[in-house]
This record gives sequence, structure tokens and C-alpha cells, in this order.
Amino acid sequence: MTAIVFPARLALPDGFMDKVTARFGAQVQTGDAICAQHGTSEAHFETMLPDAVIFARTTEDVVAAVELCRDARVPITPFGAGTSIEGNATPVCGGISLDLSEMNRILAVNAEDFDCVVEPGVRREQLNEHLRDQGLFFPIDPGANATIGGMTSTRASGTNAVRYGTMREAVLGLKVVTPDGKVTRTSRRARKSAAGYDLTRLFVGSEGTLGIVVEVTLRLHPIPEQISSAVCGFDSLKGAVDTVVQSIQLGVPLARVEILDAMQMRACNLWSKLDYPEVTTLFFEFHGSPLQLGEQVEMVKALSAENGGGEFAWSNLPEERSKLWKARHEAYYAAINLRPGAIGWATDVCVPISRLAECIEETRADLDKSAIPATILGHVGDGNFHVVFSIDPNAPEEMTEVEAINARLVERALAMDGTCTGEHGIGIGKQEWLIAELGDAVDLMRAIKRALDPQNLFNPGKIFAL
Amino acid sequence: MTAIVFPARLALPDGFMDKVTARFGAQVQTGDAICAQHGTSEAHFETMLPDAVIFARTTEDVVAAVELCRDARVPITPFGAGTSIEGNATPVCGGISLDLSEMNRILAVNAEDFDCVVEPGVRREQLNEHLRDQGLFFPIDPGANATIGGMTSTRASGTNAVRYGTMREAVLGLKVVTPDGKVTRTSRRARKSAAGYDLTRLFVGSEGTLGIVVEVTLRLHPIPEQISSAVCGFDSLKGAVDTVVQSIQLGVPLARVEILDAMQMRACNLWSKLDYPEVTTLFFEFHGSPLQLGEQVEMVKALSAENGGGEFAWSNLPEERSKLWKARHEAYYAAINLRPGAIGWATDVCVPISRLAECIEETRADLDKSAIPATILGHVGDGNFHVVFSIDPNAPEEMTEVEAINARLVERALAMDGTCTGEHGIGIGKQEWLIAELGDAVDLMRAIKRALDPQNLFNPGKIFAL
Repeated sequence: MTAIVFPARLALPDGFMDKVTARFGAQVQTGDAICAQHGTSEAHFETMLPDAVIFARTTEDVVAAVELCRDARVPITPFGAGTSIEGNATPVCGGISLDLSEMNRILAVNAEDFDCVVEPGVRREQLNEHLRDQGLFFPIDPGANATIGGMTSTRASGTNAVRYGTMREAVLGLKVVTPDGKVTRTSRRARKSAAGYDLTRLFVGSEGTLGIVVEVTLRLHPIPEQISSAVCGFDSLKGAVDTVVQSIQLGVPLARVEILDAMQMRACNLWSKLDYPEVTTLFFEFHGSPLQLGEQVEMVKALSAENGGGEFAWSNLPEERSKLWKARHEAYYAAINLRPGAIGWATDVCVPISRLAECIEETRADLDKSAIPATILGHVGDGNFHVVFSIDPNAPEEMTEVEAINARLVERALAMDGTCTGEHGIGIGKQEWLIAELGDAVDLMRAIKRALDPQNLFNPGKIFAL
Repeated sequence: MTAIVFPARLALPDGFMDKVTARFGAQVQTGDAICAQHGTSEAHFETMLPDAVIFARTTEDVVAAVELCRDARVPITPFGAGTSIEGNATPVCGGISLDLSEMNRILAVNAEDFDCVVEPGVRREQLNEHLRDQGLFFPIDPGANATIGGMTSTRASGTNAVRYGTMREAVLGLKVVTPDGKVTRTSRRARKSAAGYDLTRLFVGSEGTLGIVVEVTLRLHPIPEQISSAVCGFDSLKGAVDTVVQSIQLGVPLARVEILDAMQMRACNLWSKLDYPEVTTLFFEFHGSPLQLGEQVEMVKALSAENGGGEFAWSNLPEERSKLWKARHEAYYAAINLRPGAIGWATDVCVPISRLAECIEETRADLDKSAIPATILGHVGDGNFHVVFSIDPNAPEEMTEVEAINARLVERALAMDGTCTGEHGIGIGKQEWLIAELGDAVDLMRAIKRALDPQNLFNPGKIFAL
């Protein structure tokens, strides 16, 4: 990969900070710790500091920040919980980091319509706490307790996507502030529409480069009558993947199905104090009526046995389920901590599921050639998987080695007609791969970016070079 | 509504047709009958003729046609089956009608990945015939036997959308020819991706104004183990709608649920020779295992009874099911033929389902003030419904009256936070309403159109005025 050249980082124009301070008072901060927090991410990228952080509390605040930046030609980069993986919210050209975490009100829950309207700083766990009493839930679960605005901007998905889709399907509509400072609604609250270009989907996944999300309307789902979970180890990776493919073919509506390789199982056992066999393992979740669940579990159990699965441990008990999914959610930290004090590097690709077993097997073989600990885990039903590396901070050559392994992983996925990222986004880290994946289509993206943000001020330097 | 002003219709430049004929030979036609067929639609709009029709057989043909048009600044409008409802494929500025119906090959079926790749002229019934032996089906069913390219371009949906989504969810990726003559793939074949802007969703529903679809990758679903259907009449519209909302709340995965009002039932009885009670009626379809179906049917039956439903006639027999859905699919023709020789005008809106009963009731009351026969039918689970008017061709004042009723209908839907079209698209007929619905967001659409089609040659005059 060639190095990415970011747009030049310019000094703030004279008088700009005076205007910002006059408008925002204590809501603007320039301290080292705050700036460092907004220039770092849960990833391996170097810190790139903003000149100042503005904490927005209202849509009017966002408009004012955008207008100040527009008039002074200062870059502005939205920031949520800072949990993104590809440096998506790192202000590579400096300027303003616009922190939206205080815009965290749940504005409406329309139970009969199965939707809600929230501000971008609402966290997904906060939302589900709020919804529980109404018998509803928001299914998208990327692991981290991310903000809804951040999940929208990176087109996040996670463990429930096989049944409930990704943020692409979950977002019904948006209110965004565009680079010209206008507040625009991308759609009404109807469940579907054929009214013009699908602006909602254009902003979902655009990583704050086209607009800043100030309101999100989300699809919700009824909490299932019953939830069961199951764990099953397999004697081969192919057996595990085939079990999932055959289950889907038989119409089993799997709610979650996660694959963890032997190394990841070892990491989970160590980190979450469990004692699962350290083999390729599937974690399942089933949603439905007791009758439906019984049928689903029986079918998947039979398929697992036919495909080399071991003991099929399933349970209806909430505490068993919580233990299982807590371990899954902590898998990233467990993997990094295979070496205490290590730097984590998480990457993801997604391939057609017919190629998944082959892609994971080849990747595992490649990882095994290296001394750097690395685990594989993923969302089998989608064909999406992650590799998490645990890198020695005192051995810079390991970073170079991981870069090469990551390059081979992405090339392998692309050769299988897959994508360079299933759910993390492009951010800083996957820009060369986006071009390898989509070629001329990136020029269409650039044309759209230029049309909507002619000054290139919204999260400049991300997704592609202009 | 103010009248739409289309871009000027210009004479073809000298020598243009010579070049077209040199490249396309017998594939280009200028006869009156062919031009009339491509300038008319299944709707009430006046005929607007193309100067010539090119029948494309390959992507290279499409590229050649686009390059000829681009160089000579001649408008080009793609055409599929001609079944669209809002004049979407009518060449309002003349020029070339690019007929894609002969690009009708099914290029690949990837059964294990639950997807297929087709050319744009493939019809949905043809595709399902082809898929049947592999245990798969393509669920999107707008009624008409439309082409996949046309369904993509209008973001079609139909009777199965409550469970399987719309073309927004069904299209995994596209190959398009853009106005600069380039062939671009919008995505790889992975089931999900977070790689850059969602170009796939941008082209879905863009009505051929941004690119011409030459290949579509579609998500497929396993054919359900069993299918049951049911019919139930209700003593109130609210009772019918409440039955559906409560079913969804209880997690019943309804595959289809259609509402037909008393007038529509009368039309269906006459046209399809049936003898259903002429009251507000729900048509249901259930997909699943026999156990699941039994449970679903019992739940919906109980809810229907609680909400004023009459006899709940359900059946597992394919012939009963075919009769029912044949009647539903013919409902449009049945409605128009309430007056033999009449002109049909079909409109659609979509509202949050909590407002659906109220929206339909107010609309029915409005229709009842007119002497023009009009029926209501719709996709209750989505909040989407249609009104079909049967207009006397010899009474021009009826057209004016329907225009006013339609205006009140759309205003009513917008006031309920709904959309001016759930599935027909904007085309010619809903342009003023798009602006009423989305305001400044239409300027973003215009900016995108200008960026991708600076000469405004791709289906000019549609969706919005430039």
C-alpha cells in the first residue's frame, strides 16, 4: 500500500477561535487531554489532534459550528463515542472536533409504528434500556456501546445482522446539517418510500463527510417472546460454516450466529474466565415463541451433529445467555490481551458465504506463519469476519508485518468477490482497498462529495483522497 | 398543483440518426407503432414520443448508445416492460428510448449465497420460474410482470414487502452505465459492506436519471416449506388494520397482508368471478414450517375475531392460494373496469401504520363524495395503499376532479408524516409533491444529478426540474 496523503493541515485563521468562544463559551475546549481524547481512537492509528473540541447540545449548536467553520474554511469532524476502528473520527487535518455525545435525548418512541427518533449521541445500550418497558428493542449490536450517530455514519452492523439487517436497514430517516449549514430531513417517517433519490442511505455510511447527523429515526422490533442461546464446538471450520448455510437454506431465522476460532476461544477463556473447549465454535441465538424455538433448536442441533459438531449446549436461562454474549462482546479486548499491554489492530472483511470457510482457513494458515498473536471471529450468516492482532508496542516491525498480513487478507477477500470492510468503514485505514474494490465507482463518490462539500471541510481526508 | 415545465424538446442534430443506424442497424426503429408504445405507459399521462427506439442486447450496446447521445447531446431514457405508473419511462424530451427488454439473460444463480445476477430485461415471473428447481425465490412482487431493471429504477415493492423488504433491500449490487459512458460496478457480491458511499442504494429508485442499469445482483430467499393463505372480512377498517398491527407486535412474520376495501372487493368479484362478501377484507399469506404456520394462523385468527373479523377462511391448497392472489394481482384491472373503456389512474401514498386506518377512512369519505368509481387497496404491514380511479375518457372534467382528489390524498398523507409515493416513484406525476414532502432535500438530489449528469441527458424531466 502507498501512504495516504491527507489534505494540508492549516493554521486556524486569525480571529476564528474568538468567534467560536463567543458563540460556545464553556462548550468549547482546547485542553491537551480533551484534544488527545478526540484525536485518538480504539485503533492503531497515530494520534492527530483537533485544534479545539466543541460540545454540541442542540441542532442550532451544530449549525452554528458548521457556519463558523464554513466561513473560515476550517475542517470539522463529528465525534461520538470514539469506538470506531478505522480512524473514522480522527481529525486528520485538525480544525474542530464536533463532539455530539451530549445530544443524547430520546425524542420519541412510536410503539405502534415500531420506530423511534433519537439524537446522535444516544448510546445503543441506553436506547435499549429505555425501550424495554414498551416491549421493543433496537437490534443493531456492534459490540461496543457506540452512539447511534456513529453507528449511522459507519454503517455499523454486528451480531444481529443476519436476521435484523445493518444500519442500512435500521435507519428510516435522518436529519442532517449539510456543509452549507442547512438542516435537511432525508425522509418522512413512512416505513418505505419511492420518493426520489435515497438520501437516507447516502448519508448512512458516509462517515460524516457529507453531513452531520443531528437526528435519527430508527426501526424497532418487538422483543421476542423467548430467547435461547447455544454453543457448539466443531472439528472443522467448514463443518461450522456448513451448519449455518444449511440452517439458512432450511429457513431457520437465526437471530445471531457467531464464529470464534480456537485462538479466540482461548483468549475468551482467559479473559472472561470460561472453560469452553478451544476449538472452532459457533455461538447461536434464537428468537421466537417457545414452539418456534424448540423447532429451530432441533433443526440446528441435527445439522451441527451432521457437520462434525460436538456437544450442543443450549439454554433458555437469561444468565447463561448473558455470560455467553458478554464473552463475545469482550472478545476484542480478550484478543488484544493475549499479550498484556499490546496495541490492538482489528480488521474486517466480508465475502459471499459460499467462500467463507475457504477465506477463513487460508487466513488462519497465513496468521499461523507469524509469531504475532491473532484471533478470528465473525458473523457467519453475513460472511463477515474479523482478525484481531495483539501487537508489541516496542517492536515496530510487528506493525509492518501486520500491515502485510492485512493486505493479503483484503486481497484474498476481494479475489472472492468480497468487500474490504463489512462493517468498520473505510476511515483512514482502508482507502487504498476501496479503490482496489470499486475502481471507477470511487470517482462517483468523489463527484458527490465535491457537489455537496465543495470546500472539503466535512471530515476531510476520509474514505478517499479528493 | 402548478404544471411541470419540461426541458425543451430539441430536433435531433444533423447526422445523429445516421450514426445510430450505422451502429445499431435493425436494432434501431422509428416506426409510429414502436414509438407510440415507448411513449405511452399504463397510466393517464399523455403520450410523448421518442425520436427513435434502440433495442440494446449487450452492455456494449448500452455504452454505444450512451456515447452517441452524449456526444450529440440527445436525451436517452431507459425502457423495460412499460408497466410503471407515474410516467417514469416516458421520454418527455424525445430523443432515444433505450429498450432493455432483450437483455433478459439470467447470468448466474449462486444458490449457496442466496443471490443471483441478472440482466435488466429479466421479468420477475421468468426469474421465479428459473429459480424454482433450486428451492429459491425472489420475493418482490409489484403485481405487474415488470422487469428487474424497471423495478430497481423505481424502487418497487408490493405484496411481500412486509416480510422481505423492497428493492432497496433486495438489490445487492448493480452494474450501471453512467452519463460519461463508463461501466461501473456499485459493489461486490458480499451480503453487506461498509466500503464508502452506498452507490447501490443511490441508483435504486433514481428512475434512470443517474445511470442505466445493465446488471443486477439480487438477494434470494429459500422457498418456504409450506405456504398458507387466508381471507377475512371485517366490520370496520380500523378492525382490519388493528389486526395487522397487533400481529406484528406479537412477532407474527406475516409474508403478505393486503387490504381491499368494499368497492375493490366488488370490482374483484365482478372481474375475477368470485363471491366474497363486499366488505373491507384482508388477504393474508403465511410462510414457514407446518408447525410455524399452525401457530401463526391461530394467532391471527384470534386477533381477527377480537377486532370484528368475520369467517377466517384459510387454506394450504395451492389452487386456493393461486385464485386469491390472481384476484389481488388483477385488482388494478378490475378497478379500472368498473367502467368498461375507462382510463385508469393509480396513485399511492404510504404513512406510519399508526395513522393508516385514519388515512384510509378519510380518503374513502373523500372518494364517496365523487361519482367517479374509485377503489382502495394496499399493503397494510407497510402503511402503503393505492387508490385506483376509473375515469370516463369522454369527460375531461373527471381528470380535473381526480387531480384534486389525488392532491388531497397526498396532502393528507404528508400531514401524517407519510410519503407521496410508497412504491410507484415520482416520474412525471408526483414532482410537486416531492418538493412538498422533502423541501431542501430536493436541492441535494439536484446537486447529485448535476454532478453525475451535467448535460441532463439521462431521462431528463423526471423526479425534479433542474
